[in-house]
Amino acid sequence: MSQAPRQLKLGAFLMATGHHVAAWRHPDVPANAGLDFKHYKHLAQVAERARFDTLFVADSVAAATGDIASRMARSDHFEPLTLLSALSAVTEHIGLISTVTTSYNEPYHVARKFASLDHLSGGRAGWNLVTSDAAAEAQNFGRDEHIGHAERYSRAREFHRVVTGLWDSWADDAFTRDKASGQYYDPAKLHVLNHSGDHFKVKGPLNVARSPQGRPVIVQAGSSETGRELAAQTAEVVFTAQTSLANAQAFYSDLKGRLAKFGRTPDSLKIMPGVFVVVGETEALARQKFEAFQALVEPEVGVALLGRMLGNFDLSGYPLNGPLPELPLTDSGQQSRQKLLTELAGRENLSLAELGRKIAGGRGHYSLIGTPVQIADQLQEWFEQGAADGFNVLVPHLPGGLEDFADYIVPELQRRGLFRTEYEGSTLRENLGLEKSANQFV
Amino acid sequence: MSQAPRQLKLGAFLMATGHHVAAWRHPDVPANAGLDFKHYKHLAQVAERARFDTLFVADSVAAATGDIASRMARSDHFEPLTLLSALSAVTEHIGLISTVTTSYNEPYHVARKFASLDHLSGGRAGWNLVTSDAAAEAQNFGRDEHIGHAERYSRAREFHRVVTGLWDSWADDAFTRDKASGQYYDPAKLHVLNHSGDHFKVKGPLNVARSPQGRPVIVQAGSSETGRELAAQTAEVVFTAQTSLANAQAFYSDLKGRLAKFGRTPDSLKIMPGVFVVVGETEALARQKFEAFQALVEPEVGVALLGRMLGNFDLSGYPLNGPLPELPLTDSGQQSRQKLLTELAGRENLSLAELGRKIAGGRGHYSLIGTPVQIADQLQEWFEQGAADGFNVLVPHLPGGLEDFADYIVPELQRRGLFRTEYEGSTLRENLGLEKSANQFV
Repeated sequence: MSQAPRQLKLGAFLMATGHHVAAWRHPDVPANAGLDFKHYKHLAQVAERARFDTLFVADSVAAATGDIASRMARSDHFEPLTLLSALSAVTEHIGLISTVTTSYNEPYHVARKFASLDHLSGGRAGWNLVTSDAAAEAQNFGRDEHIGHAERYSRAREFHRVVTGLWDSWADDAFTRDKASGQYYDPAKLHVLNHSGDHFKVKGPLNVARSPQGRPVIVQAGSSETGRELAAQTAEVVFTAQTSLANAQAFYSDLKGRLAKFGRTPDSLKIMPGVFVVVGETEALARQKFEAFQALVEPEVGVALLGRMLGNFDLSGYPLNGPLPELPLTDSGQQSRQKLLTELAGRENLSLAELGRKIAGGRGHYSLIGTPVQIADQLQEWFEQGAADGFNVLVPHLPGGLEDFADYIVPELQRRGLFRTEYEGSTLRENLGLEKSANQFV
Repeated sequence: MSQAPRQLKLGAFLMATGHHVAAWRHPDVPANAGLDFKHYKHLAQVAERARFDTLFVADSVAAATGDIASRMARSDHFEPLTLLSALSAVTEHIGLISTVTTSYNEPYHVARKFASLDHLSGGRAGWNLVTSDAAAEAQNFGRDEHIGHAERYSRAREFHRVVTGLWDSWADDAFTRDKASGQYYDPAKLHVLNHSGDHFKVKGPLNVARSPQGRPVIVQAGSSETGRELAAQTAEVVFTAQTSLANAQAFYSDLKGRLAKFGRTPDSLKIMPGVFVVVGETEALARQKFEAFQALVEPEVGVALLGRMLGNFDLSGYPLNGPLPELPLTDSGQQSRQKLLTELAGRENLSLAELGRKIAGGRGHYSLIGTPVQIADQLQEWFEQGAADGFNVLVPHLPGGLEDFADYIVPELQRRGLFRTEYEGSTLRENLGLEKSANQFV
């Protein structure tokens, strides 16, 4: 049997009104999208018709507050696990990836909810495992400041170990449910975890049978040294922000190169950089579409967004027309992004307001504004030149931007043989080309 | 305008295969129901067509294990919040009540998930607020033993205060989303909780707008003195196990009598005893139906169930044909049930195995086995004689038992004018006759 040609993977990054910070003000965008289930149902169905691999939902366990926050559409939205559970009932194929922090959760709850979602969806759940670096999150969970980087990662590693241990509580065939003999499960096929570590003590077992995928897919987005090591050891999909082919190639080969020491093959981890896409029938039309959003950005809002991207800095005290101030290197996991943006501001001699406006759409992700052919050319280059296994697609506004991608770019990728026309399997793992997880205790 | 006649409320208590401990072995029951979403979707739609007020899902954050547990269908099932979120997408009217413990959770997560479910469902969420009394649950969250009764309730009270405070973070009209001016929310309409108490320190605000019901409906089931006081102060629906009209009347008038001191009217809390129902076209057929389940009960399984109901006792060491042993009064919140069952065993001179078999179906709830008219007569008597505002309906097996209730009993109640033929409103509160919650900070 000949090997099927390698094809790229696509994720639809859903942020209520879209990725552009001013999208909610655009006439085509429903401003209340964050809490409108019909909106999300439409997005999911658009993405599924286009054969996207996954929906991807970011998260924070705190609301943005303050004068500038009140001018951004970031304070009211569905909790992702409840949202994706609801979407599982109105979709059939697409993967459902939710961000959940390891910093302010209990592994038993997290293991259980993802296993439940995996059963609800017939094997389509994925967990974007993150750590929390914002004081606002810490303050909702009994702390004054966020947990430091090293402890956060130590907790995340142990958290992952407990969750995957709980997912393996039951052998795939543990539940015999034999009406005649009265045996519901085979006690020999149950593993009680009895975990006791630095951060957690969890007995188990989970009260959910092993899920259709064995384990939901593990997704990560850390790019620090510690983050890359954790990803190489445990992640199956990595979402990353890369702004040039060379940087993306370096990240790709670095991360793939770390897999062997954990006994893993390069194919067992899919690297999907974020890509911000604005498509038009001509380049001028695409540019014009983008500028309609840019015109809606208030300078203070762009700067506030910039402060968040740099690591939760409050930049409101600095002059809008002045330069990006020198900022202390933080512990918040944003160092690489901080370096990137500082270089960009220097290179292009941008004021604080100009830099804020510049990142209002793509937020530091690779940005493509052009025709379907131009955009497909770029995606193909990254895919074929060792920079990406696929892309997490960020669009300026929703639902319009996703509809555009589905209508213009997906068919172009399909014509080139770069993207599927039918789902390959029934689970997210099967569609991503990942193996079903083996049970570590069987 | 004349007042509409008072009508009773109905909840459908969903336990995967049904309430009877041996239901899963019956040929009419899908043994894998606990993790079959299609099964739950069917149940929800049957209940909604019959105009039930709510679906009600119990919960435990631990799996039952051990030799006898392996003969019961209690170790694998959906996590309730993910399940009810999925069901919200395939139903339109019915309330969605999930049990979530206050003992091993964080109030921010709980407030957020229920608010999210309330938005997803258009105002149909309810929270059955419980405390955890099983060591198996404690051991999944870093503890060796469960939290004692007094501390558990102190934590539950504070948990409720924090959750409702978070639900009131935003005024109903806080989110202006004014595209022209760029104001997304009005900062003057945001309340930051800044809670600091004995058990929790939570800053807020919630990152979900105030939900359609203002607050999801609060449900409780405690029957101890402390439990009743908490219910009188905070609950809007109380689920309770009462086995005689006289006991139910005493409980009803006691609980309603406690409301005034909290400034509440009797109508602001609905008391819904559980009722175990087996219906047949004749009494003999109903009895025959019930006996088909009884015949499938293994003595050891009935006794294990009994041990759990008495407060997580392991009774496996006692002779099956001997009497119910004297058990120490536990701290586990099961005292009233313990007293009831001890009296029953004495009165009817039942062996341990006989007592286990006796409770295998109704589990200490009021049990009705008969024709539609006989059963409706009993429900009507309780409803009209000050014992109940409605009932939480427990059926031996699913989906059959719920279909039977919908086909035979609901029409009989409707003919008598005791039950609705159309939903009165669009939210759970409107259907239950409860007012939308006022925001304590506005």
